[in-house]
Amino acid sequence: MNRESFAAGERLVSPAYVRQGCEARRSHEHLIRLLLEKGKCPENGWDESTLELFLHELAIMDSNNFLGNCGVGEREGRVASALVARRHYRFIHGIGRSGDISAVQPKAAGSSLLNKITNSLVLDIIKLAGVHTVANCFVVPMATGMSLTLCFLTLRHKRPKAKYIIWPRIDQKSCFKSMITAGFEPVVIENVLEGDELRTDLKAVEAKVQELGPDYILCIHSTTSCFAPRVPDRLEELAVICANYDIPHIVNNAYGVQSSKCMHLIQQGARVGRIDAFVQSLDKNFMVPVGGAIIAGFNDSFIQEISKMYPGRASASPSLDVLITLLSLGSNGYKKLLKERKEMFSYLSNQIKKLSEAYNERLLHTPHNPISLAMTLKTLDEHRDKAVTQLGSMLFTRQVSGARVVPLGSVQTVSGYTFRGFMSHTNNYPCAYLNAASAIGMKMQDVDLFIKRLDRCLKAVRKEQSKESDDNYDKTEDVDIEEMALKLDNVLLDTYQDASS
Amino acid sequence: MNRESFAAGERLVSPAYVRQGCEARRSHEHLIRLLLEKGKCPENGWDESTLELFLHELAIMDSNNFLGNCGVGEREGRVASALVARRHYRFIHGIGRSGDISAVQPKAAGSSLLNKITNSLVLDIIKLAGVHTVANCFVVPMATGMSLTLCFLTLRHKRPKAKYIIWPRIDQKSCFKSMITAGFEPVVIENVLEGDELRTDLKAVEAKVQELGPDYILCIHSTTSCFAPRVPDRLEELAVICANYDIPHIVNNAYGVQSSKCMHLIQQGARVGRIDAFVQSLDKNFMVPVGGAIIAGFNDSFIQEISKMYPGRASASPSLDVLITLLSLGSNGYKKLLKERKEMFSYLSNQIKKLSEAYNERLLHTPHNPISLAMTLKTLDEHRDKAVTQLGSMLFTRQVSGARVVPLGSVQTVSGYTFRGFMSHTNNYPCAYLNAASAIGMKMQDVDLFIKRLDRCLKAVRKEQSKESDDNYDKTEDVDIEEMALKLDNVLLDTYQDASS
Amino acid sequence: MNRESFAAGERLVSPAYVRQGCEARRSHEHLIRLLLEKGKCPENGWDESTLELFLHELAIMDSNNFLGNCGVGEREGRVASALVARRHYRFIHGIGRSGDISAVQPKAAGSSLLNKITNSLVLDIIKLAGVHTVANCFVVPMATGMSLTLCFLTLRHKRPKAKYIIWPRIDQKSCFKSMITAGFEPVVIENVLEGDELRTDLKAVEAKVQELGPDYILCIHSTTSCFAPRVPDRLEELAVICANYDIPHIVNNAYGVQSSKCMHLIQQGARVGRIDAFVQSLDKNFMVPVGGAIIAGFNDSFIQEISKMYPGRASASPSLDVLITLLSLGSNGYKKLLKERKEMFSYLSNQIKKLSEAYNERLLHTPHNPISLAMTLKTLDEHRDKAVTQLGSMLFTRQVSGARVVPLGSVQTVSGYTFRGFMSHTNNYPCAYLNAASAIGMKMQDVDLFIKRLDRCLKAVRKEQSKESDDNYDKTEDVDIEEMALKLDNVLLDTYQDASS
Amino acid sequence: MNRESFAAGERLVSPAYVRQGCEARRSHEHLIRLLLEKGKCPENGWDESTLELFLHELAIMDSNNFLGNCGVGEREGRVASALVARRHYRFIHGIGRSGDISAVQPKAAGSSLLNKITNSLVLDIIKLAGVHTVANCFVVPMATGMSLTLCFLTLRHKRPKAKYIIWPRIDQKSCFKSMITAGFEPVVIENVLEGDELRTDLKAVEAKVQELGPDYILCIHSTTSCFAPRVPDRLEELAVICANYDIPHIVNNAYGVQSSKCMHLIQQGARVGRIDAFVQSLDKNFMVPVGGAIIAGFNDSFIQEISKMYPGRASASPSLDVLITLLSLGSNGYKKLLKERKEMFSYLSNQIKKLSEAYNERLLHTPHNPISLAMTLKTLDEHRDKAVTQLGSMLFTRQVSGARVVPLGSVQTVSGYTFRGFMSHTNNYPCAYLNAASAIGMKMQDVDLFIKRLDRCLKAVRKEQSKESDDNYDKTEDVDIEEMALKLDNVLLDTYQDASS
Repeated sequence: MNRESFAAGERLVSPAYVRQGCEARRSHEHLIRLLLEKGKCPENGWDESTLELFLHELAIMDSNNFLGNCGVGEREGRVASALVARRHYRFIHGIGRSGDISAVQPKAAGSSLLNKITNSLVLDIIKLAGVHTVANCFVVPMATGMSLTLCFLTLRHKRPKAKYIIWPRIDQKSCFKSMITAGFEPVVIENVLEGDELRTDLKAVEAKVQELGPDYILCIHSTTSCFAPRVPDRLEELAVICANYDIPHIVNNAYGVQSSKCMHLIQQGARVGRIDAFVQSLDKNFMVPVGGAIIAGFNDSFIQEISKMYPGRASASPSLDVLITLLSLGSNGYKKLLKERKEMFSYLSNQIKKLSEAYNERLLHTPHNPISLAMTLKTLDEHRDKAVTQLGSMLFTRQVSGARVVPLGSVQTVSGYTFRGFMSHTNNYPCAYLNAASAIGMKMQDVDLFIKRLDRCLKAVRKEQSKESDDNYDKTEDVDIEEMALKLDNVLLDTYQDASS
Repeated sequence: MNRESFAAGERLVSPAYVRQGCEARRSHEHLIRLLLEKGKCPENGWDESTLELFLHELAIMDSNNFLGNCGVGEREGRVASALVARRHYRFIHGIGRSGDISAVQPKAAGSSLLNKITNSLVLDIIKLAGVHTVANCFVVPMATGMSLTLCFLTLRHKRPKAKYIIWPRIDQKSCFKSMITAGFEPVVIENVLEGDELRTDLKAVEAKVQELGPDYILCIHSTTSCFAPRVPDRLEELAVICANYDIPHIVNNAYGVQSSKCMHLIQQGARVGRIDAFVQSLDKNFMVPVGGAIIAGFNDSFIQEISKMYPGRASASPSLDVLITLLSLGSNGYKKLLKERKEMFSYLSNQIKKLSEAYNERLLHTPHNPISLAMTLKTLDEHRDKAVTQLGSMLFTRQVSGARVVPLGSVQTVSGYTFRGFMSHTNNYPCAYLNAASAIGMKMQDVDLFIKRLDRCLKAVRKEQSKESDDNYDKTEDVDIEEMALKLDNVLLDTYQDASS
Repeated sequence: MNRESFAAGERLVSPAYVRQGCEARRSHEHLIRLLLEKGKCPENGWDESTLELFLHELAIMDSNNFLGNCGVGEREGRVASALVARRHYRFIHGIGRSGDISAVQPKAAGSSLLNKITNSLVLDIIKLAGVHTVANCFVVPMATGMSLTLCFLTLRHKRPKAKYIIWPRIDQKSCFKSMITAGFEPVVIENVLEGDELRTDLKAVEAKVQELGPDYILCIHSTTSCFAPRVPDRLEELAVICANYDIPHIVNNAYGVQSSKCMHLIQQGARVGRIDAFVQSLDKNFMVPVGGAIIAGFNDSFIQEISKMYPGRASASPSLDVLITLLSLGSNGYKKLLKERKEMFSYLSNQIKKLSEAYNERLLHTPHNPISLAMTLKTLDEHRDKAVTQLGSMLFTRQVSGARVVPLGSVQTVSGYTFRGFMSHTNNYPCAYLNAASAIGMKMQDVDLFIKRLDRCLKAVRKEQSKESDDNYDKTEDVDIEEMALKLDNVLLDTYQDASS
Repeated sequence: MNRESFAAGERLVSPAYVRQGCEARRSHEHLIRLLLEKGKCPENGWDESTLELFLHELAIMDSNNFLGNCGVGEREGRVASALVARRHYRFIHGIGRSGDISAVQPKAAGSSLLNKITNSLVLDIIKLAGVHTVANCFVVPMATGMSLTLCFLTLRHKRPKAKYIIWPRIDQKSCFKSMITAGFEPVVIENVLEGDELRTDLKAVEAKVQELGPDYILCIHSTTSCFAPRVPDRLEELAVICANYDIPHIVNNAYGVQSSKCMHLIQQGARVGRIDAFVQSLDKNFMVPVGGAIIAGFNDSFIQEISKMYPGRASASPSLDVLITLLSLGSNGYKKLLKERKEMFSYLSNQIKKLSEAYNERLLHTPHNPISLAMTLKTLDEHRDKAVTQLGSMLFTRQVSGARVVPLGSVQTVSGYTFRGFMSHTNNYPCAYLNAASAIGMKMQDVDLFIKRLDRCLKAVRKEQSKESDDNYDKTEDVDIEEMALKLDNVLLDTYQDASS
């Protein structure tokens, strides 16, 4: 509403009240102005009405929302379904232009602003989370793995001879595939066992660099966040090797933004050595739906080069999600989430410790891993082959998600490469184990339920050794659904009694 | 977004694009300004983005949405559920104040504006629909019947001796109850049969006025829209009687806004005689959810008196619904609906005529009823007692809603008054019949499906005279639902095949 | 999704996963079944997905949502605007039938269920809140005042001679008007001053009953929740009088559900004497938008009689709001709100006490009022005439809502009755004062901001005695809005600094 | 609601009504079952209530929506913002697994189903649109360009020697970049001028194949939809060359699904020769927001290989959009859109023809281009250098979007390659021209407004030759916004008058 509208309003209801309302509006506008001027995440989260006002204001700056627009192009932001238009707040044009995912669109000033502001906010949060000297970043609507691929593809143009990527082993398919998809040959560096921890074998890395020759190496591809007992790579030392041999360094920081330790490693690596880009998941760090990643780095122009490698316009959806989320939380809200995560990590750690001891198992000692924990499953493994995987099935059926059992000796071939001891990041880890993690947003109730159900499952596995085929993950026999339901019922009854007690 | 925000935006993306967006915004604002200044329904409907912007702008003028508000009263517009807040666009304070449902609320400038504008728009539409000299109106979140009660209660204060309300019979419970609830004694004037039509017995009305004495009569309570073969009351003549005897006149115009004939009657009545208020349903005339009515009249101060009789604040929900609806439609959209309704009336009339003749029945000749039609069920009635009600059940089960079968001789007692021939508006209508109406929003598909299903039901009723207990309305035996489902399946199969062919 | 759909789903993705999903669905269904079977508020609040599933399931049972429906009536639940349909979750048919607001609609099984369940839940909560022996209740989409009117109109039919309503004075317009609108003569019983408190003058009540004669009295109309220094009426004693003289008793319990004291009074009154109905606001007790009330009582058939007095169908919107709210909160959530309110009351009380003493004022001692507090404004009043109202204006401008200043000697005429000392519930309260209340949903931040701003305003009023015309409520001069804005800016700057510090 | 819930419902309201409601529900379920069983786009579009029921049912099968779930993994589908959760219908887990974007997720049966069904529906529509023998396809949440890159990256593993991609020139950056990003060298084949049309130079293609050697060629990368006067590539002949030389063939069918001609070309190409994959935009063909593409092909296993190249989980948002859209439209709705587009193409063509002749220009004769048209700007170009670009600016300012002016002699370097005559697909097109397209969803009003505004602009450009610097696209000088606004006002006034007349 503009000045004339308010004046008309004053004639309809009391001027004093309209003015009060008009003043109240200014406080919303004030927040919006600050955001646009500073480009920083507000300290206190915005309430929904400011947020929706802001999104609405941006959306009407896009040509598909112009009241008098006529479109004669091949892409005019027309939407067939009102449901779809609404769920996107009428942002239809996506982000970027054919040449550059960070570019401004003439047809869509609002979407362009949304994109710029989101990237600016995310940059602010990355600094706040510990990487103070980050120079630039952008949100890309692709998985972390595909985003790593984009980084590798960008480097290809700078290193025409390069064929190899040096990669300290981490048993997660998509980061391995990110190199394959980009067309490079991963050179796997096995980890070394230090106490319970699996750590980067720096000597092996350097030896391999010398063996292959720096020019033939596209980059070192290191990892921060990972499942225990692997711990974040020795980023400082790797960064120094990269600097010494003039090799690019790409860091897979998938869910590391939530951990000050991971972020500190990156900051330090960049300070003492070389890090070209670090890539992180949006969903895992910002509690948004799966679908986006952030590519960040210390050299503005290199990050721009990457953004120019994405051919075409892209979905604004992940950007919109993270924008809404950060504005709702504010930096204080995000910091609070980080703090709570850390506390939950301690709590989870203590609870697993207690439980494991009750079963003659132990919590692996992995002090360098700030997010993931592992508890041995030695006794299970000794007694019976399938017991470990059965435990996994049982937890799954009892609606424990994310717990991960790692049996010994599993072998897997990924894109033609064979990994022994797959899932454990090494060929022969001393024992089977179970992982649990304290990720952002975890609640005490999650921990308590997990411990309670794990306890029950462990008990069951030990006692009922005969009942082997119980609830397999992939059982495809055509069991009658009613019968199945009946069986599950008792399980679920427990489940909900847990949840509500 | 204010000037500073746009300036900041220009630094983030190209100034030319931001300005274009900024211009585009002005066209939305322009529409809002026009609305506030003129208080008229826009000719062309607004699109959703203008509408939501407008509602958003109003909502942030209410104190519950002030960013810095602190509330220490007993009613602060706090909302426990975000779902609830959102579905009301964060308008929480309702409309009106303790003294007057049209009054402005200091705490809620936005809701107050919403209320004023809605009433203004509705007034505009009433004029457009044919009552050009209407002086004032307001939306009240009560049923038409309860709104009539409020009118009667207001009149009581002006006519201390009054005990009776003169009421040309119409067999609809809530308008009868509206008088009972208000504490008056309805004096029922039976209708006279003219051809097939049931019309106002003017002589009986005047005789009754003289018999009871004008001072003892609160008002004449007449009706426009009604089920055929009753037709709208002779409003002009009644209005003249009211003027002559100085008796107030309240018109029940329940779903009459959609018919130019009904509206014309009111306009004429007011021109030649006396009409104090006419009351209409929101949902039946404006295609909004049930819940509101419009009280309108030709004397501004009397309408204000009524609005001051409502003790307390009231729901803004019906006002919001009709505001959204009228702004979406625009006056052109509303006119189009009126036009289509008229066309559907002709179409329905023709189709029923054809069908009825095929069954040796006939369409009753009721040219004064512009909305409702009736087709005789003579042949059914002769053959068998229950056949008429059975037809009703069958239509209900086949998802024909709103068709109304009127058997002969039904007797009903309402609030202690006994009506013979209830539903037919007279003690002894010559034959049983079936009603169907062409109401606003009806589609040709409705008519076609209705005719097809009616045809099938008529056939069935005649043939299978033995299958009597089939699908009663109120059958309460505990039939197994699966069995029931099976039986209905064939019916429904037909039903959907109809619908999709 | 039915069994066949799940089976088809199992062919598309792994059966084990689909079954897990299918099981998960059963837990939602389980909650819904419990609700329908028990009709009680669940202990733990439902999450949004269960809630929306439930509403969706209900909505598709209404004929306007039947896929094969054809409508030929005058009210078919057609909706012109998709926005409107969506915000009502596609419940369009409202609640009740022409004869009875609690009746079931054949066209709308879903809406009918919604209505029944809501009333059942609300009954459960009233019991939980302290009126254990309540027999029946229903939600009516009208203001508390209008709902009281409906009660009075119902009683009229039972007490043909009655002309008067005995009413211990409470200075709130709508409850006074509720009697006027119903057509009765309020007999005002002045309160007596006991200490600082204004309490029911029982002797005067009984004397008036004897003077007028019980048959001429429609009922006693008492009040629980009210602004200090008035306190809830002596309900037990009034109920005994009613029982003794065989007079109905209607209690205005506007915002009393939130207070165990008010509810206890009602419970006790009904136990020892007579209470026919008690009426409470939906919005004030359940944190929903303005628009509904609950009429409750101890005699099932009397409550049904009232529900049968409402002529016509009514808005389902308030019922839907309270249903969503109660299911979201669960009874535990509601109890928590009640507990927090009580705590905030103590906190507010202490803070006002401290502040008042710093200004040589005092907190009035009103131990019987569990919600509202009053602080004297003696010193202001002595010094200057307008100072008290100016304080009100200043608080309003500073976005303190709900604080209410009560100057001495204000006189007001309501519907022809003149009240001296209006707003103070008595002709001559000893001093001017300011009210603040601790209502459900109040936060500590509200209290703190209020105290801070009140402090600042008191300071300002005292110092700047010359600056008299500053920020009047109703100032209608055409001040330039920009100038106004400028002036308010400093005020608001403070305001937001408060809010964010 | 399950059987017990309905039974409970029957006890609350009439069993007959509940059963009717229950039956009605079955018709929604029936549609869902058909969809899951057949995997085809329903003929008639679903209404919103079926659609939302379906999405709701799917969503509660995902573990993040399990009522009793406890999550101890690093990715648990937690969402910080309720707004975000709601806009995604609570689908949080995205689509695919780390190894494969089409894989099923154990944690998210609902999202997995959504993904499968979407791909199945899209496949159905591709067949319906003309490529009857398509074998498989999947939606990928990436731009068309990036999706082409993914195809090229997949081919790399099959053709280790390949360095080149043969590419008949089309002047659109992202398809060029798609090859660069994948790390290949584009071999540009200039088009030949036939009449006004620019067509594939087949001889040059074959000569280049022979020159470079098939093994060194990754694929031929051809294009269907494009701006006139270029026309779709000669797909049949190219496919034959590919078959003969055993070279893969990837088709950029960006907005070709909407044109039966483009789809026919693909179908024919695959029949007579070789096409490995064809890639199309979601937004341009299905009226959804920017963000997704469809990769389709005739060999199931090759398409699966591509889907396995995407490393990581991906956004479900584009899939959800297209699912909602297709279910809303139904295949009949989509066919209707296709038909209307074709009609608009004729209309646009005629209108441009008329207008161009009035200005001594002509519509280029490009019968092979079914979507885009071009009108010469000869006379402008002769007179004045900047006139052509000025015309572009003027159209932009007047809210004509998508019109594209192509001046002579523009040179552009993209990723190190220099294109002469950029935008015109050839080094030296005979004249400057203006493009307009008839894309899906275009309305007659778009055409009429465009013609009106173009007429006005052409007039203005000719007359006011002095006013050169008027409204440049990228003018960055700090013009005062008010002044700017004032100037634009007249322009916009015209604009809205157009739009509403």
